Order: sequence, then C-alpha cells, then structure tokens
Amino acid sequence: MHEQINFAIEILGTISFSMSGSFAAMQKRLDPFGVLIIAFVTSVGGGTVRDLLLDIPVFWMHDLLMCGVILITSIFSMIFKSIEKNFKVTLFIFDSFGLGLFTIIGVQKGLNADIHPLICIGLGTITGCFGGIIRDILLNRIPLIFRKEIYASACIIGGAIFLILNTFTDLSYTIIQIFTILLIVAIRTFAVKYHWQMPKFYGYNNDAEM
Amino acid sequence: MHEQINFAIEILGTISFSMSGSFAAMQKRLDPFGVLIIAFVTSVGGGTVRDLLLDIPVFWMHDLLMCGVILITSIFSMIFKSIEKNFKVTLFIFDSFGLGLFTIIGVQKGLNADIHPLICIGLGTITGCFGGIIRDILLNRIPLIFRKEIYASACIIGGAIFLILNTFTDLSYTIIQIFTILLIVAIRTFAVKYHWQMPKFYGYNNDAEM
Amino acid sequence: MHEQINFAIEILGTISFSMSGSFAAMQKRLDPFGVLIIAFVTSVGGGTVRDLLLDIPVFWMHDLLMCGVILITSIFSMIFKSIEKNFKVTLFIFDSFGLGLFTIIGVQKGLNADIHPLICIGLGTITGCFGGIIRDILLNRIPLIFRKEIYASACIIGGAIFLILNTFTDLSYTIIQIFTILLIVAIRTFAVKYHWQMPKFYGYNNDAEM
Repeated sequence: MHEQINFAIEILGTISFSMSGSFAAMQKRLDPFGVLIIAFVTSVGGGTVRDLLLDIPVFWMHDLLMCGVILITSIFSMIFKSIEKNFKVTLFIFDSFGLGLFTIIGVQKGLNADIHPLICIGLGTITGCFGGIIRDILLNRIPLIFRKEIYASACIIGGAIFLILNTFTDLSYTIIQIFTILLIVAIRTFAVKYHWQMPKFYGYNNDAEM
Repeated sequence: MHEQINFAIEILGTISFSMSGSFAAMQKRLDPFGVLIIAFVTSVGGGTVRDLLLDIPVFWMHDLLMCGVILITSIFSMIFKSIEKNFKVTLFIFDSFGLGLFTIIGVQKGLNADIHPLICIGLGTITGCFGGIIRDILLNRIPLIFRKEIYASACIIGGAIFLILNTFTDLSYTIIQIFTILLIVAIRTFAVKYHWQMPKFYGYNNDAEM
Repeated sequence: MHEQINFAIEILGTISFSMSGSFAAMQKRLDPFGVLIIAFVTSVGGGTVRDLLLDIPVFWMHDLLMCGVILITSIFSMIFKSIEKNFKVTLFIFDSFGLGLFTIIGVQKGLNADIHPLICIGLGTITGCFGGIIRDILLNRIPLIFRKEIYASACIIGGAIFLILNTFTDLSYTIIQIFTILLIVAIRTFAVKYHWQMPKFYGYNNDAEM
C-alpha cells in the first residue's frame, strides 16, 4: 500500500514537471526534440542530483516506465498546447504539485539512506528545486526559484514540518506525506495569489557586480 | 581490433571537442588558462555526466593520455588560431564529428551497462550534447543546441538508427558504428547548409517569461 | 596534528565561501532562504563535484558540523551586512582564501585516491573554482572566473607548485600546504591590485557568436 502511494506520487510529480518543462520550452520556441530534452531534464534533474549525492543508482536509468511517462506527457503537452491558452495558471499548478511531491520524496530518500534529518531538508529542497533550476539555466531564463515569491522557502518549510510531524506525532506516514505535500502547494498558491514575499536585502545595489 | 577502433574514435572525438571548446573560448577572449578549462570541460563534460549516471569510474580520472590530448590540442588551437581565419567552418566540422562520435560511444556504454536501448538513446544524446551545453553556459552563450538547426535531433536520430541496425541487421558492429557517426555528421552538415529546421511552436510569445 | 590542520583548513574555506556566496546573493536581493541556498552551493559545490568525480562519499552528506557552519556563517553575514559597508574588499578576501584552501584540499584528496598528480591539479582547480562558477551561474552573473584577473590560473599555478614542493623537497607537508595556500592568495591579491592579466586573444571579435 505504502509502496503504491509512493509510486503514484513519483509518477504524478514526473508528469507535473514534464508538463512544466514542455510548456516553458515551447514558450522559448524550441523544436520538438528540444522540448523533449527540457521536459526530461526538468523531470529528472532534481532526483538525479539527489541520487548522485546519496550514491544510490540514478532512479530513471533502469526505469523505462518513468522515461515513457515523460515522453508521453511531453508529446501530449505539445499537442495539447494548441487547445489550452491559459498557460500561466496551468504551468503554475503543475509546477507547485511537482515541487511538493518531489520535496517530500527527497526527504524520504535521505532518511532511508540514514542521512541526518536536517541534511534531509536540504536534499528535499534539491530534489524539488534543481529540475526547475536546470530547466531555467538551459532556457537562459533567470531561475524561477530566485524570481518568484516563496519557492525554495516552501520546500524548506514543508520538509521541516514533515520531519517534525514524523518524529513527534503518531500520525500515519501516508497522512503526514499528503499533508505536507498539500502544505507546500498551499504555501506556493497563497504566496503567488497574495504576493507573499520573504523580506529582502534592500541596502544593496542590484547592479553592483564584483 | 574493435578495441582499437573504439579507442581511435574516443581520441578523435576528444580532439574535435577540445578544438571546438578552445576556439569558442578564444572568441570570448579568455586568457590561456581559461581557454584550457573550457577545452577540457567541452571534451569531457558529456562523458562525465554519462559515467556519473551509469555509476562507472569517470573515464578521464585515470586516463592521463586523454588529458594530455586535450591539453596539446588546446595549446595547438591557441597557436593555430593566428594562421587559420576560417573559424566558422572549422569549428562546425570539429563540432559535428565530436557530436557523432560521442553520441555513439554513449549509446554503446549504456548497452554495455545493461541499460534499456531506449534509455541508451538518451545517454548517447547526453554524451554528445552536454559538453557543448556546459561550454555555452560557462561562456554565457545561449546553448548552441537550442539555437542551431537540428543538433540534439541528429543525436537522437543517429542513436535510434544505430540501435535498429544493431538489432535487426547482420552488419558488422564497426560498419554500423562508422555509418551512424557519418549519418549524424551528414544530418548536421545538410541541416546547416540548407537551413533545415524542426517545426517550432509559433503560437507562443517568446518574451513571455513566467 | 595533521588531521586537525586539515580540518581547520576545511572549516575556514567553508566559512570563506559561505560568506562570499551570502554577500553575492544579498547583492542580487534574494530573500533569506535564497541567500542560504547560494551560500550552501558556493561552499560545497566544488567539493561535491570533486567527490562525485572521485566516486567517494560526498563530504557534506554525513557532516552536520559542516552544514551548521555554512548555516551560521550565512545568518551571520545577513546580520553583519548592515554594519559592514566595504563589501568589495571583504568579499574579495574571503573569496581568495577559500580559493587557496579548497584548491590544495582538492589536490590532496586526488593524491589520496591515487590519481595521477597532473590530473590532481585539475581536481584542485575544480574544487577551488566550481563553487563560485555555480554561484555565478545561479545568480545569472558572468562567472567571476572568466571576468577577473588571474583566477583559475592562480589555482593551476598553486596546485603545480604544491606538487613540485611535495615531490622534490623535504619540507614538511603542513608547511608546503600553508605556503601554497598563501601563494594562491598572494597571486590573487597582487593580480587584482596591480591589474595583472594573462595575455588574451585579441584577434577575435567578441560579439561573433556562432
């Protein structure tokens, strides 16, 4: 049961990120193979860095299903795009769910590998954010993570609350999992809707490059 | 015999990419050590990512010959540049050969590690393209792969045909290898000469950043 | 004794790079969590790539102390920034020390893993420079390494002299270590103060992108 839920979560997150990558690549007018590559990198980027850091087999290298899901989702997005106009909202929703799902998977894989819980929060953040960061670097955009309201912060908060609930409460693992994923989605949604921002450092000159 | 051909191919691909990296770095007016670093990253970038994904020893870590080849090629390029004016064509030819050579090596190493053939096409594409992508990111250029006519597409097509010929024909391995490498070079050459392009998604506003 | 010195050097380098990352991120007006992520990536980026290449456990995955040092230094930098105005000099000094410290650590870890000394110079350069390169790519700046006077060159020269002294003299390991670190800092300092530059390739048109 637990296995199946984890599996469903991983597939859902992959679909979310594959769509988000495909749409971002189409916006930049890449050709279909380029769109496919960006979809792939966005989907597997965070998990790949996580697996390399943990020195466990990279999850998609022996997982034809996962690669197939990315391929089909990307092709679907390329066809779907001519119907769907409301990209901003679509992209945002998929991105938020992928972010929440992957963050919690990252924390879990860290715990399974006996990594200290505090470092697992970092692993979760990497799993959630790095696919999108690599996507934005490849597409020559300023990484979303550093432009949007509360992005990585949502991962860090969600990961921390996952660990707190997991350590100090008797709630079932699955409930904690779903709760913290929805929490990350909620933080992202409210943050964008009400323009929440973390305080920034305005004493600095933005243009001053060293 | 087979070993020697593979070895010759790897050396040739390394020389090609080292030159392509050196010329690109000189165009950006880097100093000699900077040129050397870019030459190195361009040559080994794709194979390094491939080896990390496959969890096999990174090929150049114990291979002084390979590192020496990159060093000498890069120094040669720095001296050679004052004689040679026709950089666009030179850079293009070296880049195309490196692309073809490295793609097929990537597919082969994947097959050797028992990776599913379809995922091996991805590995070949990564091996062929990632050195150039990292080079362009470091030099702050829009990655060549996303600007030029048919680049990654050539890898994907070449890798797929390699697998088809390898599985369904009785042709010798070496012949298939050389044929698909030349095929990738040919696709690239014709694509650039006749401005072949994959269809793109023009319904999108290029400037709309989310 | 030797162990303690190595440990102190690693902590000092981490503090230096965490500060350099934090200040650079604050200049770009990132929020506190963003500053933390950049501080982290700058500190561990070079060493992480080195450990992945050597296929040894990534140094910070089981090292809570190291992660804590980065966290505390980054928070300290965020508070400290309102007092300290002279950021250019501060950033420069920290960056130079981190560069020297990490380069020599990289060379040493390569030697310990039985890598050929010449490849170890490359590993040292990667360890010293990649954290800063990743930082600059994430912050969308032209990588410092390719803009400033003599940066990677200082690593290559320092690493080479470390190896020469280590092989051909009877000086104690610790003295060679400290000497080469200070040498790298000195090269950087004089290079910036007196605008030393490596010769560049002026025959090229900087704008000509291929």
